[in-house]
Amino acid sequence: MSSTTTPVVDIHTHMYPPEYVKLLESRSEIPLIRRFAGAKDPRYIILPAEAESLDKIAQGESANLPGRPVTSHYSLLTQKIHFMDTHKIDISVISLANPWLDFVASDEAGKTAEDVNHEFEAMCGEYPGRLFFFATLPLTAPEDVLLAHVDFVKGLKHCRGVILGTSGLGKGLDDPALIPVFKAIATAGLVIFLHPHYGLPSEVWGPRATAEYGHVLPLALGFPLETTIAVARMYLAGVFDQVPDLRMLLAHSGGTLPFLAGRIESCIVHDGHLVREGKVTPERRTVWQVLKEQIYLDAVIYNEVGLKAAIDASGVDRLMFGTDHPFFPPLQSDEQGEWESMTWNKNAVEKALGSNNEGVKQVMGGNAAKILRLTEDA
Amino acid sequence: MSSTTTPVVDIHTHMYPPEYVKLLESRSEIPLIRRFAGAKDPRYIILPAEAESLDKIAQGESANLPGRPVTSHYSLLTQKIHFMDTHKIDISVISLANPWLDFVASDEAGKTAEDVNHEFEAMCGEYPGRLFFFATLPLTAPEDVLLAHVDFVKGLKHCRGVILGTSGLGKGLDDPALIPVFKAIATAGLVIFLHPHYGLPSEVWGPRATAEYGHVLPLALGFPLETTIAVARMYLAGVFDQVPDLRMLLAHSGGTLPFLAGRIESCIVHDGHLVREGKVTPERRTVWQVLKEQIYLDAVIYNEVGLKAAIDASGVDRLMFGTDHPFFPPLQSDEQGEWESMTWNKNAVEKALGSNNEGVKQVMGGNAAKILRLTEDA
Repeated sequence: MSSTTTPVVDIHTHMYPPEYVKLLESRSEIPLIRRFAGAKDPRYIILPAEAESLDKIAQGESANLPGRPVTSHYSLLTQKIHFMDTHKIDISVISLANPWLDFVASDEAGKTAEDVNHEFEAMCGEYPGRLFFFATLPLTAPEDVLLAHVDFVKGLKHCRGVILGTSGLGKGLDDPALIPVFKAIATAGLVIFLHPHYGLPSEVWGPRATAEYGHVLPLALGFPLETTIAVARMYLAGVFDQVPDLRMLLAHSGGTLPFLAGRIESCIVHDGHLVREGKVTPERRTVWQVLKEQIYLDAVIYNEVGLKAAIDASGVDRLMFGTDHPFFPPLQSDEQGEWESMTWNKNAVEKALGSNNEGVKQVMGGNAAKILRLTEDA
Repeated sequence: MSSTTTPVVDIHTHMYPPEYVKLLESRSEIPLIRRFAGAKDPRYIILPAEAESLDKIAQGESANLPGRPVTSHYSLLTQKIHFMDTHKIDISVISLANPWLDFVASDEAGKTAEDVNHEFEAMCGEYPGRLFFFATLPLTAPEDVLLAHVDFVKGLKHCRGVILGTSGLGKGLDDPALIPVFKAIATAGLVIFLHPHYGLPSEVWGPRATAEYGHVLPLALGFPLETTIAVARMYLAGVFDQVPDLRMLLAHSGGTLPFLAGRIESCIVHDGHLVREGKVTPERRTVWQVLKEQIYLDAVIYNEVGLKAAIDASGVDRLMFGTDHPFFPPLQSDEQGEWESMTWNKNAVEKALGSNNEGVKQVMGGNAAKILRLTEDA
């Protein structure tokens, strides 16, 4: 890539380094990785419904193998590079996938995070200029360990941010105890990549879910709705005002935030409680302002209809292309070839921006290179 | 209004006829209407969090009055007409508000529905050409009573459809037992107006909700997410294929369906279970097709960003203006004057469609007049 062309950058792409796979293999509750006799790859089991199949198998009942195969796409760096080359991706900003270290015991979290982040730093070092990463924080560790870890990852050459789930310290991202953590991350110049994992309580999918609909509902709706709720709670708690230099990249184009921002604003202005408390003032920063000033959105939305709304909400200079690799592999063609999930997202960018070639380049990589400082010092 | 101009039509506007108010006043569980000493208007209590305040008051603890005031806007037809005149609305398609008759005992439901629908028919008769209605169905009644009621409302001169919540017969709208009901509604030429009420389980809003954020989260997010889940379940269950002439108008511009349709499609195509079951075929009707062929969206979304996505998803000929009156009254100005909620939604239509004056007219009323046959036989 010459220094004058705009790189194509994938900012939503996960890796499971071998040490993390071992950690998941040692577990007896979800999330866990389990090997099954006769199956080529071990299986990664995340969702509560998948754990139910696991129980059935343990009781000798036949059931489809639960979860998803942990193929070489999950753990082999050469496979990540192959995926990037196949799809003409110049730079990837890799991150550990959900649920990160949310389940690790408090006294082990600091050491585990150190191991994981060292491993990510080493992977990035193997392909200079092509790999950067979002670090993983030991959220279950004591506050001093957690804050020290923000300093530690800031010092890693290829770290450009941290990936966070929505549980925070266990009470959500509107927990006042997180404010010092957000401040430390912001002061370190790191972007938070907010990613869902917990979805919504299973009962909302109804009695026919899973058995008949596979994992469509929790993945297609549960994930983006979780993100939307988490950010709305942060907004209402005033987190974006309390930490004005907080910068947050939202997975899946913000869940549904661009579409619902208008309704959120209307519900705020029309809420008797908030009006009585004096919180609905002309000086109040609206959701729209936060979307344009502190939030970035990825472009993992698979269609131009939603992507256009995301661009309208945040601005074409705040959207960043992503693939969600190694999730959503092609099921009816070769995994070593082109992935539909990639094509759909790329087509969405091109259709959403039409003849705005400069905008396409920005979303496909220019924004990420600038916002995450990817073409300097690599 | 002359027959050559396009009327302005409000298709999302609720009424609480006096008999329904009495029914709610007689109840001890939510939904209910309760009078408080010293308060000018009785209060309408719907949300679980509001019921908690009710318990506190019962125990002598001071608390803000729960719920929302049942002002004359809820039950007085003259007030509805005043609202219409103030905002230059020519025609309103009124409907009973949530939760309709979902809570009525099985043996009373048929009679109650008959009373309510007679009352709506009588109201419409008072203002010829200006009022039509979506009828209420006795969903808790035995199937024969329920199906007979569809026939009954079909015969009411001003009835143009039925308003439904997401619980159906208690198991959601993907319940196979509902297919005969959907078929009867479709055969009768009635449009279903799908409206949320139940939201999401309270725990998703976190420990700070209600006390600090008022009702913003359940109203701004719980409602549209509920609608999205309900329609996705119907789609996955094949309801739209099994009842090809089913026509469904979704409240709040489809919840979040236009924004998430791309992700739903991707999750279907990439779902191992659905692929193994042979459900992912080239002949499959996509969510996008259903959005363009069987679904209508209201324009109650308060901003052009979301509204543009709704138009892109369904087509400018399938969007219909609405106000959600009497909900979201102005809190910092006179209720007898202009309502911000109306202005925001109207501005959204004008901004979304820009210089497409014909499109603005269609969304503001032309579509509704045509789809719901409002200018013939009034």
